[in-house]
Amino acid sequence: MKYFADCFTCYMNQIHRALRLLSPGIEERKVVDAQHTMMKFISQCDLDKTNNISFGTEVYRVVAETLGVRDPYKTLKIKFNQIALDLYPKLILIVKNSKNHIFTAIQMSIMGNAIDFGTSEDINIEKELNALSKQDLGGKVNIDNFIQSIKKAKKILVIGDNTGEIVFDRIMIEQILEEYPNKQIYYAVRRGPIINDSTLEDAKFVGMDKICPIVETSASPGLIVNKSTQKFIETFNQADLIISKGQGNFEAIVDENTSWTEVYFLLKAKCKVMETIFHVPIGTLLLVKKDVNLIERAAIEH
Amino acid sequence: MKYFADCFTCYMNQIHRALRLLSPGIEERKVVDAQHTMMKFISQCDLDKTNNISFGTEVYRVVAETLGVRDPYKTLKIKFNQIALDLYPKLILIVKNSKNHIFTAIQMSIMGNAIDFGTSEDINIEKELNALSKQDLGGKVNIDNFIQSIKKAKKILVIGDNTGEIVFDRIMIEQILEEYPNKQIYYAVRRGPIINDSTLEDAKFVGMDKICPIVETSASPGLIVNKSTQKFIETFNQADLIISKGQGNFEAIVDENTSWTEVYFLLKAKCKVMETIFHVPIGTLLLVKKDVNLIERAAIEH
Repeated sequence: MKYFADCFTCYMNQIHRALRLLSPGIEERKVVDAQHTMMKFISQCDLDKTNNISFGTEVYRVVAETLGVRDPYKTLKIKFNQIALDLYPKLILIVKNSKNHIFTAIQMSIMGNAIDFGTSEDINIEKELNALSKQDLGGKVNIDNFIQSIKKAKKILVIGDNTGEIVFDRIMIEQILEEYPNKQIYYAVRRGPIINDSTLEDAKFVGMDKICPIVETSASPGLIVNKSTQKFIETFNQADLIISKGQGNFEAIVDENTSWTEVYFLLKAKCKVMETIFHVPIGTLLLVKKDVNLIERAAIEH
Repeated sequence: MKYFADCFTCYMNQIHRALRLLSPGIEERKVVDAQHTMMKFISQCDLDKTNNISFGTEVYRVVAETLGVRDPYKTLKIKFNQIALDLYPKLILIVKNSKNHIFTAIQMSIMGNAIDFGTSEDINIEKELNALSKQDLGGKVNIDNFIQSIKKAKKILVIGDNTGEIVFDRIMIEQILEEYPNKQIYYAVRRGPIINDSTLEDAKFVGMDKICPIVETSASPGLIVNKSTQKFIETFNQADLIISKGQGNFEAIVDENTSWTEVYFLLKAKCKVMETIFHVPIGTLLLVKKDVNLIERAAIEH
């Protein structure tokens, strides 16, 4: 997906917010210099040949460079995974006590993209799940349609997003495998640190590698296919169902030719651009099936 | 004043907002290209040698260039002046019916910087004035201190800001001249179009040129002394009281050496940076006397 006018404002804001989060006492001038570096990068890019995933990658490269640390979110990522792991027994119980296990497990995975592990130490899962049940998922497909696609699929690729969230994805994958043990499921993480996204280390930390094979995408805030591992590219090309988590992967995959497969996006709308594309307020949880119209709609006003 | 991290975000937002305001159906790509041009400008600047007034000037140069119009706010400026002129008889009546004419006239001028002539066709002056009376003016000087400085001064320079607001400044200047006919008062406008700031044309439109001599500053959203007219520079150097209207002029003058004169800033805090400097919420009306501490405070965290 290309960028909207709000994206450039957002890159400046992201640098500011990330540096203040990761280094609360940082001098204003260092933040300004980081923004200046980002502007230099953008100003040298041909806007017709650059997408917002490249810009997003640069945002967090600049943040890491400014802080002089390769993986500035490392501590937070461990914390987010631990918070989610502590919730795991409770999450499983909710699924097993529900009328429709797979339905609830899918809700968990969608919800996992919405929970802010950074601002809440005391996440109330029942409340979150209750709120999710009451709200219409944006995107004009429902969870039952999605379950039908899961039933039909042989090889499923789940493209993960954040730490913490990965535990919620584990719940979904475990439930699919319990009900349909013959499905081949792969889980994709980033091949290197980028923001608070899950890497192989996180997949191992939360035990995802015990549930299904792990493949690695690019070290960017949404996948870049040709910068992903060969194993990922093979899996991506062979999967007959792709489950894409989060806004970053949505922005990346919406422009890819995936005509040979079904793609579902599970994400929270996190910015004004998503409001524009989906006509839903920021914060809406979305279950969206990729189709040509969606791409056309997402391409409007580029 | 130099810039804060919020300033870079703000420039991108200003371009976006201005283009949507002035050309509601503009294509997203034109907005993005305008932002890209702005980023190129910023990325080529040495941050140690550029201030935010230069950046603000470039923002509106880019907006004008994108729209292919030299003075894109022209229609709005006429409208704002006309709305304010229509209020003029009522404003005068309020001043004359008040206990302390000059006090109320100064309130009018401060209020003039706060009224958004763009969003309200039906401005309720009594309500605005009432709200102003109830709130503490930020800035630790009060209107009585300011009146004492007016009484002492011989040559007063009022540096104007927006159209519409200029009518409210006229009320203040007329009242000062009525009570102290021997004061020499000058009113400064921009020497060329920039945003909705007043120019000579606007000063004539609202009759300010009949009240006091008009001098012209730079065509920038805050004055740049060495780009102002010779007549302005002389007046600036000779004045023993400078009354600076609006945030743009504040940002410009706060770094200038004005040790030979008293400077009062009358402005509405319009962004987060003002919150940081003055420790007041956005929207607070400020009456601030320039002193060395103020400059130090404003220079914090550059």
